[in-house]
Amino acid sequence: MGETKQRIAIDMDEVIADTLDKMLERYNREYEDTITPQHLHGKKLRHVAKCGDQVSRFFDDPLFLRDLKVLPDSQDVIRELQTRYEIFIASAAMEVPASFAAKYEWLKEHFPFIPNSHIVFCGDKSIIDADYLIDDHAYQFARFRGQGILFSAPHNVEETRYPRVHNWRDVADMFLK
Amino acid sequence: MGETKQRIAIDMDEVIADTLDKMLERYNREYEDTITPQHLHGKKLRHVAKCGDQVSRFFDDPLFLRDLKVLPDSQDVIRELQTRYEIFIASAAMEVPASFAAKYEWLKEHFPFIPNSHIVFCGDKSIIDADYLIDDHAYQFARFRGQGILFSAPHNVEETRYPRVHNWRDVADMFLK
Repeated sequence: MGETKQRIAIDMDEVIADTLDKMLERYNREYEDTITPQHLHGKKLRHVAKCGDQVSRFFDDPLFLRDLKVLPDSQDVIRELQTRYEIFIASAAMEVPASFAAKYEWLKEHFPFIPNSHIVFCGDKSIIDADYLIDDHAYQFARFRGQGILFSAPHNVEETRYPRVHNWRDVADMFLK
Repeated sequence: MGETKQRIAIDMDEVIADTLDKMLERYNREYEDTITPQHLHGKKLRHVAKCGDQVSRFFDDPLFLRDLKVLPDSQDVIRELQTRYEIFIASAAMEVPASFAAKYEWLKEHFPFIPNSHIVFCGDKSIIDADYLIDDHAYQFARFRGQGILFSAPHNVEETRYPRVHNWRDVADMFLK
């Protein structure tokens, strides 16, 4: 039966984990700034931050990713998706190797219904063999063999090449109606 | 041009890393036993060890995987494969989450020519979108969309369903002639 289910691969950061919220909170505190998601239309934090690319050093702290908030409705919708689809979580963890353990523990805490066999840490997501990939980074869709579904984030508002979902209710509407 | 290259995904343990050698050395020392690879035809160490499944606790030590030997010729052959194929390293690291960092560091030390974008830590390798998967575990081929190539290990000698390579010279003969 598993063979006949379509597969959906789901990104972590800014799709099920609110990485941006934590980054803004940490950045604004450390640099005494007041950037909000509204300041980031079409841009990443590093493009508007006083410290530029240095914001990426937040990820060097293995604990930074450990207490991210869960994106609203993602748990309920993914649990329901599992009844009709084969679900994989696919995170580009190789960019920050120090984050492996924290990412894994976060998943086990908030998505315990995703088995280890269905967690993937990778770099280039074109290696993922799935029918759909829900991700906030359109560049991951370029060589992906299935259909990319863009999950809205401030940095990707100007991207128009892929079907877009704004939140997990949109994902439910797309896959569960 | 990258688009036109066929892809080969390559397992780590017992394919490029000599996990068995280290396991036998550690097991024989701790349990005062004298098991060799020749005792393992068709079996895993846990099937013949005095301690049974307890051998898997060796992997709980994050450092256990850090100093594994490299399988002969794997570095040279993989470097040459890269000129004609797109190469990914795909390890079932999710079985032992404590091993992520050690596996990553081992790869960076011995296979620095594999970029982060082409390293995958997963569970079920059917999620890998590649033309070939070189692995010592035939069960990983069951739902894999490409061609499984069985890399010989004592535990898999009785497996006959897949093309077999005995060592990295065999891999070179298969893919580089």
